[in-house]
Amino acid sequence: MGSDSDLPVLDPLFKRLKNFNIPFEAHVISAHRTPDRASEFAKNARSNNFGVIIAAAGKAAHLAGVIAAHTTLPVIGIPIKSSVLDGLDALLSTVQMPAGIPVAVVAIDGADNAAILAAQILAVSDDTLTDKLSEMKTEMAAQVAEKDSRLQKELK
Amino acid sequence: MGSDSDLPVLDPLFKRLKNFNIPFEAHVISAHRTPDRASEFAKNARSNNFGVIIAAAGKAAHLAGVIAAHTTLPVIGIPIKSSVLDGLDALLSTVQMPAGIPVAVVAIDGADNAAILAAQILAVSDDTLTDKLSEMKTEMAAQVAEKDSRLQKELK
Amino acid sequence: MGSDSDLPVLDPLFKRLKNFNIPFEAHVISAHRTPDRASEFAKNARSNNFGVIIAAAGKAAHLAGVIAAHTTLPVIGIPIKSSVLDGLDALLSTVQMPAGIPVAVVAIDGADNAAILAAQILAVSDDTLTDKLSEMKTEMAAQVAEKDSRLQKELK
Amino acid sequence: MGSDSDLPVLDPLFKRLKNFNIPFEAHVISAHRTPDRASEFAKNARSNNFGVIIAAAGKAAHLAGVIAAHTTLPVIGIPIKSSVLDGLDALLSTVQMPAGIPVAVVAIDGADNAAILAAQILAVSDDTLTDKLSEMKTEMAAQVAEKDSRLQKELK
Amino acid sequence: MGSDSDLPVLDPLFKRLKNFNIPFEAHVISAHRTPDRASEFAKNARSNNFGVIIAAAGKAAHLAGVIAAHTTLPVIGIPIKSSVLDGLDALLSTVQMPAGIPVAVVAIDGADNAAILAAQILAVSDDTLTDKLSEMKTEMAAQVAEKDSRLQKELK
Amino acid sequence: MGSDSDLPVLDPLFKRLKNFNIPFEAHVISAHRTPDRASEFAKNARSNNFGVIIAAAGKAAHLAGVIAAHTTLPVIGIPIKSSVLDGLDALLSTVQMPAGIPVAVVAIDGADNAAILAAQILAVSDDTLTDKLSEMKTEMAAQVAEKDSRLQKELK
Amino acid sequence: MGSDSDLPVLDPLFKRLKNFNIPFEAHVISAHRTPDRASEFAKNARSNNFGVIIAAAGKAAHLAGVIAAHTTLPVIGIPIKSSVLDGLDALLSTVQMPAGIPVAVVAIDGADNAAILAAQILAVSDDTLTDKLSEMKTEMAAQVAEKDSRLQKELK
Amino acid sequence: MGSDSDLPVLDPLFKRLKNFNIPFEAHVISAHRTPDRASEFAKNARSNNFGVIIAAAGKAAHLAGVIAAHTTLPVIGIPIKSSVLDGLDALLSTVQMPAGIPVAVVAIDGADNAAILAAQILAVSDDTLTDKLSEMKTEMAAQVAEKDSRLQKELK
Repeated sequence: MGSDSDLPVLDPLFKRLKNFNIPFEAHVISAHRTPDRASEFAKNARSNNFGVIIAAAGKAAHLAGVIAAHTTLPVIGIPIKSSVLDGLDALLSTVQMPAGIPVAVVAIDGADNAAILAAQILAVSDDTLTDKLSEMKTEMAAQVAEKDSRLQKELK
Repeated sequence: MGSDSDLPVLDPLFKRLKNFNIPFEAHVISAHRTPDRASEFAKNARSNNFGVIIAAAGKAAHLAGVIAAHTTLPVIGIPIKSSVLDGLDALLSTVQMPAGIPVAVVAIDGADNAAILAAQILAVSDDTLTDKLSEMKTEMAAQVAEKDSRLQKELK
Repeated sequence: MGSDSDLPVLDPLFKRLKNFNIPFEAHVISAHRTPDRASEFAKNARSNNFGVIIAAAGKAAHLAGVIAAHTTLPVIGIPIKSSVLDGLDALLSTVQMPAGIPVAVVAIDGADNAAILAAQILAVSDDTLTDKLSEMKTEMAAQVAEKDSRLQKELK
Repeated sequence: MGSDSDLPVLDPLFKRLKNFNIPFEAHVISAHRTPDRASEFAKNARSNNFGVIIAAAGKAAHLAGVIAAHTTLPVIGIPIKSSVLDGLDALLSTVQMPAGIPVAVVAIDGADNAAILAAQILAVSDDTLTDKLSEMKTEMAAQVAEKDSRLQKELK
Repeated sequence: MGSDSDLPVLDPLFKRLKNFNIPFEAHVISAHRTPDRASEFAKNARSNNFGVIIAAAGKAAHLAGVIAAHTTLPVIGIPIKSSVLDGLDALLSTVQMPAGIPVAVVAIDGADNAAILAAQILAVSDDTLTDKLSEMKTEMAAQVAEKDSRLQKELK
Repeated sequence: MGSDSDLPVLDPLFKRLKNFNIPFEAHVISAHRTPDRASEFAKNARSNNFGVIIAAAGKAAHLAGVIAAHTTLPVIGIPIKSSVLDGLDALLSTVQMPAGIPVAVVAIDGADNAAILAAQILAVSDDTLTDKLSEMKTEMAAQVAEKDSRLQKELK
Repeated sequence: MGSDSDLPVLDPLFKRLKNFNIPFEAHVISAHRTPDRASEFAKNARSNNFGVIIAAAGKAAHLAGVIAAHTTLPVIGIPIKSSVLDGLDALLSTVQMPAGIPVAVVAIDGADNAAILAAQILAVSDDTLTDKLSEMKTEMAAQVAEKDSRLQKELK
Repeated sequence: MGSDSDLPVLDPLFKRLKNFNIPFEAHVISAHRTPDRASEFAKNARSNNFGVIIAAAGKAAHLAGVIAAHTTLPVIGIPIKSSVLDGLDALLSTVQMPAGIPVAVVAIDGADNAAILAAQILAVSDDTLTDKLSEMKTEMAAQVAEKDSRLQKELK
């Protein structure tokens, strides 16, 4: 994450990764304040056995792009809503990457989806993870169905 | 792709996949006109040995989201610019997915990056692909350096 | 509705339908979390004697479009404002439908108007409903006139 | 329509209505230049046996709202793209109606969908129209499937 | 005003008009709920000795345009911010008038400026009003100068 | 006008003023390149017998605001569309004036309406102009009616 | 600053300038309410030994542009977020300057960066300031690194 | 510049710098394709005797921010309009920098102003440049005055 002020927004991300038993590291690294740390981290990520990198940043959100510039690992970008413009600045700064350097962007403040997308990517070579993703999907559907049942009772 | 009118925009996607020797299928499937075909395709994609699905659509671009609803494979969304709003409608329709069902979104008309992202995802378990991605990165840097050299000559 | 968090926004919708004595069902069905339930519901809606379907959803709001893909009934879409972008994402995701699959879109969070529009549609073959709509229009005008009278007293 | 300059955009609307054998009238009526004609038309529309009114206008597109203010018939609004802002002004002017006076809005320049929506509304009491809508849906799906077949041949 | 919920926003307007000794009437008139009253009011405004009409409305703000359609008096439009989109919908609905029917638009929620603009318009044939406008301008400048003096003290 | 490149857009303005027999001056004055000329012009406008000032400018369109800062005459602003952002920058720069200094803003590139609004303002003390405005309104309605008649013939 | 209501937003600006030992003056000067004071200030700024001018204003933010029109000193513009549109109006009004009269624009409410940019500009001929800027950069990096260390402890 | 496709847009920049006799280097350096070259260039810029750096880039325009992260020199950012969104993406990506790392942003495609701003910055310690800036301002005003004279003749 680009700033520790993003921590609360990222809570669902950490929960989901733990829930999936995906080992992870979390760092405060700024593309602008600690650019060398950002590029070092990205350059060594593959040899350090990372499989996916998730970058969350607000405003002129360059973190995901800067990371992606230095690695061939898939990089997931989470645009963070800040005090103005409702995260539109972060969304456009993260998603409009030029040809050659992709970032996989999820919704503004979409921390949970970033974790699930990371799991889907790692599941390419991990059948246990695939099973967990299927279970999650089944559970989610069940939760919606239950909410619907509850609504039917309320409406009577 | 949601419509065959998207074909020219997707040309760089096909070229890149061929260049990476990634086997692929391309289909015209509409989330709205052929919804059952869309869900069938998505439901069977994993058992049909697809590793990643790329969905390109314009306007109220639901294709990527509808596909993602029916699979646990990573789904990459390409928002396509149509005759109005410069693709902002497609971008928001594709990226603002609710928690639980991620889509990995690239830039508006970002066909090339969708292919590269797909390669990065498949490279999680494919070292040959990782090498190709590294080569591509080196080549890209060389091209920029060459453009810079040419500029230096022009400026003299 | 795509989520039970939309319930408070939809309250005027339920009130208006009851007020018009229009029988209705309300369901929590997600285009993304319970896609099969969404398509089942839509496919069977006409034979289950529904006359109109109203779909409310936020963010990348695909629900109305997914429903419309599976039925020839008129589908009314209510874009719901969520935590970012003030509902612009839901509006564009709902209204920018491709040719062939219309959704009848009302204002962001426009639950009351969705109910009135449904009544206007059903009134095509229901004169009692037409009369109720005329009464409602007369009452609304009277309310505005009364507010104007009150203002005249305050201004004296 | 608010101006005869909207005629080319509305061509698919006329074609579709004829194709559905839905009798219709078309008028150039401006909410701003001929306001009395607009209100007269709307007030008498029901007694003149109109079932649905479709209003197309650009810029500060008030036509649909003004019509809706004077009738209890369902009013469909088509926001027309003009020389600036890509139709966003017309979209917001048409869709953001206050509670009490709904307009059923389709996509910017969405003439074909306006016609189909009108057919869906009239089909509430017209089974022949319902059948035609089903056929149209089947045909559309077939067209997409054919485009997909053609693509498969091209890719070989 | 289109709704009495706009009253608090319009407070500076009433204050300024009183301060300028400009006689005025205030009404709640809705372009959509009381369209006939709106057109009656506008048609008779000139013969009723109004010099300027100020119309304030939110969302799909048609009031100013509808009034302007029925009079040759200058019509000032105040776009009102409502619960979504920060008044952008009201601004575009009010300002993007088609050629032939102008509305003089001030800032979103710009009630004070609407009053001053009205005064400027009436001052075309009223020298006392011109003098008051000059005094107001002098006072405003003095207030800013005083704020600047206070700041100088604080900064010491 | 802020630049002579705005001349073609302003053509309808000149035509309308001539058509109304309103004497006028036209100047190229830039708020940024000739700021002193802008303030001189504005300060002396009333004593030079101007009744209304119309300011047209694009991009960060400060001209209308700068003029308004130096005069108590009504100032009409025309936001001009330039090469990017479709005139949204000019619209917001012209319309979002702070309390105390109003600008009467018309549509983006709305030159004709600026002229008509000027006529409406001057008509406050000029009955001949009022009559011309009424005639114009009648003619406009007749033109729309004729277009409608022509359409009826085409549709037969 | 255009209004003393901008003072709280500008607090980081004053702190940073003091921290850098850069002597400064702060004034409330409005481009619209005290236009002559604005132009006087700007015209005399260079001879009064100012090196850089920072202008902060909201809404139709003309202050920076008006200042820049009257001086050849570098002018930094801070767009201030006001009650609507999240500062987008101020951003576009400040940044979209026509060719010939640049304003150096920082982020919406970006007071701290305006101060740092001023320091960078003055450092062109002031090595002490260059050293302070380097120290600041080092400190910022250290702060991020410390936040990262703290996060590592929390995650254990 | 981030890509040699930006060259035509930057032509006025080169012309202006030559016209001011400001020695300069121009490079094609991509924040994403040649990130190391970008950071190397920025880190060494001060010791290589650069006084100002101008970075032009489109889409998710990270170049100016990445450069600014590695230097204490003033960095001017030019957001470049690309095929979609009219440069709004580049503007927000360049201007919305987080506190600590300013970029001095000019208008979208504002190449000429970037050059003039650079001159204004370097003029802090260069009186010859100050004189040239004053001359340019005088000339610009003369050009506008001449355009106005020409207009007066045309209007006769």
